[in-house]
Order: sequence, then C-alpha cells, then structure tokens
Amino acid sequence: MENTTDESPKLGKYDLIAELAKCFPQENASTVVGIGDDASVLDTDGDQTVVATKVFVEDIHFDLTYVPLKHLGYKVVTVAITDLLGMNAVPTQLTLNIAVSNRFDLKAVNELLEGIDACCETSHVDVVGLDLSTSRRDLIITVTAIGTCEPSRLVTRKGASENELICVSGDFAAAYAGLLLLEREKKVFEANPEAQPDFTGKDYLLRRQLKPEPRLDIIEALRREDILPTAMAAVPDGLAAAVMQICRASDKGCALFEEKLPMTELTFTTLKDLDIVHTVAALNGGDDYELMFTIKQADFEKIKNVENVSIIGYIKEKEAGYKIITGDNVSFDIQAQGFYKQ
Amino acid sequence: MENTTDESPKLGKYDLIAELAKCFPQENASTVVGIGDDASVLDTDGDQTVVATKVFVEDIHFDLTYVPLKHLGYKVVTVAITDLLGMNAVPTQLTLNIAVSNRFDLKAVNELLEGIDACCETSHVDVVGLDLSTSRRDLIITVTAIGTCEPSRLVTRKGASENELICVSGDFAAAYAGLLLLEREKKVFEANPEAQPDFTGKDYLLRRQLKPEPRLDIIEALRREDILPTAMAAVPDGLAAAVMQICRASDKGCALFEEKLPMTELTFTTLKDLDIVHTVAALNGGDDYELMFTIKQADFEKIKNVENVSIIGYIKEKEAGYKIITGDNVSFDIQAQGFYKQ
Repeated sequence: MENTTDESPKLGKYDLIAELAKCFPQENASTVVGIGDDASVLDTDGDQTVVATKVFVEDIHFDLTYVPLKHLGYKVVTVAITDLLGMNAVPTQLTLNIAVSNRFDLKAVNELLEGIDACCETSHVDVVGLDLSTSRRDLIITVTAIGTCEPSRLVTRKGASENELICVSGDFAAAYAGLLLLEREKKVFEANPEAQPDFTGKDYLLRRQLKPEPRLDIIEALRREDILPTAMAAVPDGLAAAVMQICRASDKGCALFEEKLPMTELTFTTLKDLDIVHTVAALNGGDDYELMFTIKQADFEKIKNVENVSIIGYIKEKEAGYKIITGDNVSFDIQAQGFYKQ
Repeated sequence: MENTTDESPKLGKYDLIAELAKCFPQENASTVVGIGDDASVLDTDGDQTVVATKVFVEDIHFDLTYVPLKHLGYKVVTVAITDLLGMNAVPTQLTLNIAVSNRFDLKAVNELLEGIDACCETSHVDVVGLDLSTSRRDLIITVTAIGTCEPSRLVTRKGASENELICVSGDFAAAYAGLLLLEREKKVFEANPEAQPDFTGKDYLLRRQLKPEPRLDIIEALRREDILPTAMAAVPDGLAAAVMQICRASDKGCALFEEKLPMTELTFTTLKDLDIVHTVAALNGGDDYELMFTIKQADFEKIKNVENVSIIGYIKEKEAGYKIITGDNVSFDIQAQGFYKQ
C-alpha cells in the first residue's frame, strides 16, 4: 500500500528494521514473537494474543483523488487484519486512531468509519478503541489489529524445511494492475478535468486495489482440513518479498515456477496492454493481501480440498538461493524489489 | 501532548468519539472494555490483555525545535504506557511504527529509538514490533502499548460512588509551565538566533515537559497496600478532563478542593511570573501523565502509606455537578477545556 519508492535502496527497509531491532532486548516471559514477523505474539495463559499496528498516511499510502473514503476504511482493516492472518491467527478486535485536518468534515470521517465498520462486520472484529487527533494537512489512519491463536496453531515465517510445498491464496498482480489504471486515469483527468475515466470491464482489478478482502476463509479452511503450515507470511508487497521473508527466517532457499503463479486472464491482458511484464508484477507489484504458506508434502492431498490455493513452488536448501523457473526451464534470481525498496 | 487547539469546540473530542463509537457494536465475547476508556481490554483465559495505541505527529504533538529526539522517544513511551496504568494494568510489551521523511537520517532515528529503549528498560517493557514507513515531511510516531491485568484488579473510569475520595499521583502544571518556558524561549530564538535560552533553576519544569516518567510506582504501591481503586483514569489533559471522565462514566458529580491540588513551589512561582492562574493550569494544562483514582473511605488509612499521592476531593451525587472549592469556600464549576478542546 505504498505508492512511493525509497531513493536509498542500499539498506532495505526490512534490513534496517532488523538492524534497529538489535537495540531492543526481549526480556518478558510473555513475549513469544518480537520484531521481525508479520505481527507480535504475546503469551497469555490460554491462547496467544497477536497484535499488529499499521499506519496509513495520505499521499504516501493512499491517494484520495481516486480512493473513496469508504473503500479506504475497508482496505485499512483488511491490511491490518492480514498481518494477523499471516501468523495463522484469528482477528477479534481492533483499535483506531484517526488524525484529521480541517480539510475533513464529520461526513468524511463518518464515511471512513462506515468502511471500517463494513470490513469489521464481515470479519467479526470488534472496534474496541477510537481516538481522534489533529493533523496539519494529511489524513493519518492507524489501525491496531488484535487477534488470538491457539499456541499449537501459531505459524511464524520461520519453520519451512527442504522439499516443502509453497502455497499461496488467491491470484496476484490484479491490485497492481488496478493501481496502474487508476494512476493513468488520474493523469488524464489532471490534463483534462472534463475527461471521464474509462474502466470498462476492469471492475475486478479496481476492486482488488480499492477494496481487498481479508483471507479469513483460508485460515478457516486450514483449520477445517487440519493442515498446519510450517511457515507463513502475509503478502502485502508481492510474492518475492513474502517468499524471501519465509526463506530468510527459515534459513532456506526456494524455487518458484513462473507458470504456476496464479493470475486472472484480465490481469494478464491488462498488464500486457500496459507493457508490464506480468511475472514482475506478480513478484513485486504488491497490494494483493493474500497469504503464503509452506506445507509438508504429506499435506498435498489435503490442500487440494482448500479452494483458492495454488502451489507455486517448493523450499530448497539455502545454497540454492531464491529462483524462479520459466516455462522454458530457465532459472532466474528472484529480485525482491518490494523487500528492499519499501 | 497537543500544542494546538481545535477551532471547532462545539462538539468536544470525547463527545465526538462517543458519538462515532455508536456505529461499532461490540460482539466478541473476549471484548471486555471497548471505546471510551483509557485503553481497550480483552479477555484471555487468565489475565486480561490491555491495549492502547497513541499517534504522535510532528508540529501537532511535539515541536522538534526544542524537543530532543531522545527525550521524545522517552516521552512517547510514557504517554502510551500511562493509558494502561490508567486501567491499573501492568505494561509488558509495545510495538512501534515510525514514519520518516528524508529530513531524518539514520542517526536521528537511532536517537529516537534510544529514548524509547531507555523508557522501556526502566518500565520492563519489551519492544515486540517495529515498522518503518515514509512520510511526506513530518515525523509520525505510533506506539501501541500492551499490558496485562488480573481481572479482579482491572479498574475502568466507571465505578466511583458517592463520598469516595479522589486521589491523584504526583504534582500538576509543572509540565505546562515547562511548555510555556520552552515556547517563550523559542520565540526569543526566532527573533534573535544568537540568543541563548535561559532556563536557570527550571530543570524540574523542563524535565516534566520533556521527559515525564510513567507512574508504575503507583500501580505497584496500590497492589502492595492491597488498595483496589473504584475508578481510575490517566491524566494526560489536566485534572479537569480526568475527573469529568470518571464522573461521567460513573454517573456522579464531584467536589475538588483548590488548596489540595498538588503543585510545587517552583511551578507556582513560575506560573505567577508568566501571569497564569495556577489552578487553571493544574485543571487544564495537561501533559502531566499522572494517575487519578477514587477509593473507598475505608482505604483512607492505607493510602497514607503510598508516597506521592494526594487526596484532592470527593465524589458527590450527579446533580452536584463538577465543582472546585476555593480556600474562601467559594465554589466554581470545573471547566474542562482539555476535555472539549483537544
């Protein structure tokens, strides 16, 4: 959900976080998972509490020239919840902090909250905290998602073993294609305010960009089919970042198959029309909010019962690096742009 | 911690939050305390989990022309933790989100984190989440404080009864006096960049503004002396807002005694020099981060054993309103400016 690129790619965002994290020792017995995963995990006497906070700053994370406030509300909840899903946890509550300037009236705040409420309702999540403050100009939305997980079902990024299958939910690059269309029409509009945007037949791409759904169905299906992934990650920044997060944390390598990356025909043709290489968009486009997880080969039969899941590759030894294999059996290094550039 | 005032005081911040909160039903069984208290409380199988998120936006909540980054880091932790203390909970973890523009280099981020780490260390709190993102210009710091509380010791704003004693920790208006001094010297500096600030003898006031301490000692003392407050609130926005929050939630009124409001001699004389009415500063100055709580009269002897606590008044029936009584036995309505203006 970041529209900008960092100009200092030497030390990537996640490397920098890992470096800065070193100054924070973990001392409390109740700290289960600290800095460096999708969410933080705390031990309570029974289930574990999983917490993730996301901050959304106007013109950095969203552009109100084409994002309706109601959709934005829905999306920020999806984004925050997805970090809990990336731990195999079930979201239960969230708290909100909204900083507004005098550019926004009560009606605008209400529209935003309606969208938040809509996603919370479909996700069975209670909004248990709401704070308002002032901003100088921009809208700043902070969502803290809180969830719960049985200790035996908690899955971190660490835990993938060689030959395990790499699975992903949903399809990829649609949200990125949607963003490109919205940005294109914004430019057209800026040049000619009389112009009407043309999104005929592109509804799916816009919906994926503007109002993504949290993949609660996957978390439920994994429980139903009694599949416990060995490692798991949310996919907010493209497949490359997610697979590298799992591989790094698990000290492994991977091979993905280009032909297995799930993508709709509409996404494929739209990207082609826009002169974008579709595999690059799936690997680095971002904003998909799908889930990636690794499973033992023994779970292969079970995973077939879970709808909307594709097996896109497998875990290899660390020395194999991070590879993507084309239909012609040519192997390329995965370039995790999202991983480094964010 | 807000330096600005809202220009639309018709509907106060807390009234607005209460109004907006209506659209969020609380459905999950694990939701114990939702919107409208210092923090949110979730039921886990044993102790309860208490969560509060605070967002700090540059030039709204802090001014880097006179706030050193290290102090700022310390303060944001105190502010977030204080909301948990306001529920009688013990802080255990926190997560950080920091949005920076290219105005800030790695050294600046490190200074901020050093301050955060220092307060976390003295408070025995683990930093379990760290996320970085981009801002257009301003530094935006988000702190989510997570804590724990035995269900039997959790204290909300609701629960004060008639004739109970209103207690506060520490002293008041020192941080506000410190802010006024810093703002004054900032203006001097802007007029004449060669001028050196003169804070001789004002160290305590500056420390209270720049580096307030979380009152963990009070939470510990209440447990040690086996005192369970009947209602409790953090005091970030002055005594008036806090006492009104408790009274509103408990459906009660109150009488405070002007002469009992704790204030240091230094604060008193400094405010006098600045032509500020010291009682108004204590009621509405803000940034004290002390705790207010009500206790049964039967606990009067016990509370004497707790250092740094003053009894400043008592709870009355709702119809009595919110009053402050002067040394001449004149009664005034408490004007909760902080309550409405923030």
